[in-house]
Amino acid sequence: MTIIPDNQHPGLRALIWRDDRLEVLDQRRLPDQALYDCYDSVEGVADAIYSMRVRGAPAIGIAAAYGAVLAARRRVAGHDADWHAGLEQDFELLAAARPTAVNLHWALARARQLLAAVRPAREDVVARLLELAHTLHAEDLAANLAMGAAGADVIQGACGVLTHCNTGSLATGGHGTALGVIRTAWQRQQLQAVYATETRPWMQGARLTVWELAQDGIPVTLLADSAAAWLMRSGRIQWVIVGADRIAANGDTANKIGTYALAVLARQHGVRFMVVAPSSTLDAATSSGDAIVIEERDPSELLLPAYQHDDSLVSAWNPVFDVTPAELIDAIVTERGVVLHPDAQRMQALLA
Amino acid sequence: MTIIPDNQHPGLRALIWRDDRLEVLDQRRLPDQALYDCYDSVEGVADAIYSMRVRGAPAIGIAAAYGAVLAARRRVAGHDADWHAGLEQDFELLAAARPTAVNLHWALARARQLLAAVRPAREDVVARLLELAHTLHAEDLAANLAMGAAGADVIQGACGVLTHCNTGSLATGGHGTALGVIRTAWQRQQLQAVYATETRPWMQGARLTVWELAQDGIPVTLLADSAAAWLMRSGRIQWVIVGADRIAANGDTANKIGTYALAVLARQHGVRFMVVAPSSTLDAATSSGDAIVIEERDPSELLLPAYQHDDSLVSAWNPVFDVTPAELIDAIVTERGVVLHPDAQRMQALLA
Repeated sequence: MTIIPDNQHPGLRALIWRDDRLEVLDQRRLPDQALYDCYDSVEGVADAIYSMRVRGAPAIGIAAAYGAVLAARRRVAGHDADWHAGLEQDFELLAAARPTAVNLHWALARARQLLAAVRPAREDVVARLLELAHTLHAEDLAANLAMGAAGADVIQGACGVLTHCNTGSLATGGHGTALGVIRTAWQRQQLQAVYATETRPWMQGARLTVWELAQDGIPVTLLADSAAAWLMRSGRIQWVIVGADRIAANGDTANKIGTYALAVLARQHGVRFMVVAPSSTLDAATSSGDAIVIEERDPSELLLPAYQHDDSLVSAWNPVFDVTPAELIDAIVTERGVVLHPDAQRMQALLA
Repeated sequence: MTIIPDNQHPGLRALIWRDDRLEVLDQRRLPDQALYDCYDSVEGVADAIYSMRVRGAPAIGIAAAYGAVLAARRRVAGHDADWHAGLEQDFELLAAARPTAVNLHWALARARQLLAAVRPAREDVVARLLELAHTLHAEDLAANLAMGAAGADVIQGACGVLTHCNTGSLATGGHGTALGVIRTAWQRQQLQAVYATETRPWMQGARLTVWELAQDGIPVTLLADSAAAWLMRSGRIQWVIVGADRIAANGDTANKIGTYALAVLARQHGVRFMVVAPSSTLDAATSSGDAIVIEERDPSELLLPAYQHDDSLVSAWNPVFDVTPAELIDAIVTERGVVLHPDAQRMQALLA
């Protein structure tokens, strides 16, 4: 793994495929440094996902698709006759890196589907998987531009919006999901004020969202997560706009911890609540949010070093996601259309 | 100003008066270092309050009372015949250090009252103000022990509680307000689980509350502020217990930013909400929360250094407090009694 300075990568791209390797912008170092790590193995890509160098459900899915290319290159080049089984092991490794992100599983399912349906010859496998990864990447960007336009239509009349976590170019194939709606609305001169939460514990808002928006010339006001209710009470925002890591068949939405709180608070304050996510985030096999397993990360992300020892009386509870019930969501925006007041029937109609 | 190592100060005390100086535990350095700064001037004490070396409404009030002693020592020792006017200037300096904390103004009002009623001779002023400061300090500890017992009675049957910010020995004359209720309930073996929010941006929960509880042998689980709603949904807590910086005549309560969000969320989840504060926090002159001016602190407490320049597109909104309407509060616990379902009439009855 080598590190390439930022000045070789103009523009804002979380993932770059070049010279048969995946270059991953290490988002943990932003905004202080914009450095790319280069990966030429599936283990490396899995670690880039697990370690949160790359994060955001759509970007994770795209990274996994490129990881599949790297996996295939090694498996088909080896002497192992059963390269299919080896490749499946590699897919499992990628899938385990972030269990909650459905796009990750979706991207791997597309790869499996391609292998099963096309049955490429051993010498064609790498090229076909690379073609798939590029396609998924381009599809995601196109979907985000479509969602940006559709979402901006829905929030017409709003002058202030709040977003949580980072759902922008950094989290996707480009433009962003929730942040894509905000970008498009800003470009249309619809908005007067954009607010972003810090998003503890990883500070994706304070580090990434404000960085992205400033890069695009969009002014943004940062606030502590716990100040969002007071912001709503002040009447300065009309919509909360967030992304999704997984949307169940009934519209229940798993997203960054804190999303559920914002949805409850929005409803109590007459602020409307929008989820923006590509249809790859929809998990028709999961009937409701109750069935979504919530990833918990290491307590060390919250605990000061003084408390990180075995006999400490201080522990931490660190769920990464929460689930927002569909009844608290006013609109789910996908590239296939907008679902107002989502429920199982309306979500099914979207996918039909 | 000199620094005295912690081993000369056994026990957990935010403020120590010794050798005619005020020793202030620098809470900004906890839990890594427990160091006391020594002040022998009113300017020093005002700075200790402004810089948040000492924080928590009751502790600020006590610090101000000792600050009045230091002010008087200089004013009456000087040649200035009009030492009264000089002392009033010093009181104003102290009052400006944290405008929202009503205890600060209350402690200064007690000092003014003493000077007006007793009219001590010039040579007695310092001794009388010191007597007052010691009295306020001891009264606060006694009030906290009484509130601890009364609050623990109210939450009988609860097995899990959540607290916000730090309202313990560090924030008061000892034992604590909200944390005093939790301490007493734990000592009575009523509780099974204590949860604490991190409390951005100053992290009073992550740095101070968990430190205090661990010092007392009470296990505690830390969580991100934004995870509180998800904790409530999990059914693990029955009460949220917080302190107050100011309580209006109708029970509306100003407290650390994020308190209002917790109160709204608690109501939506069937979790009950308790405010614990000495009666000095009650501000009968303020009819409702609408009249409370909310202190906003420097955006630099939220913004990364990269954004702290004049032409930055990234700004921050940093209110320190919010106001929780009385109708969201199930109980206000004071040393004078408990008010269930507070409103203007019931609050007035408490003070009668």
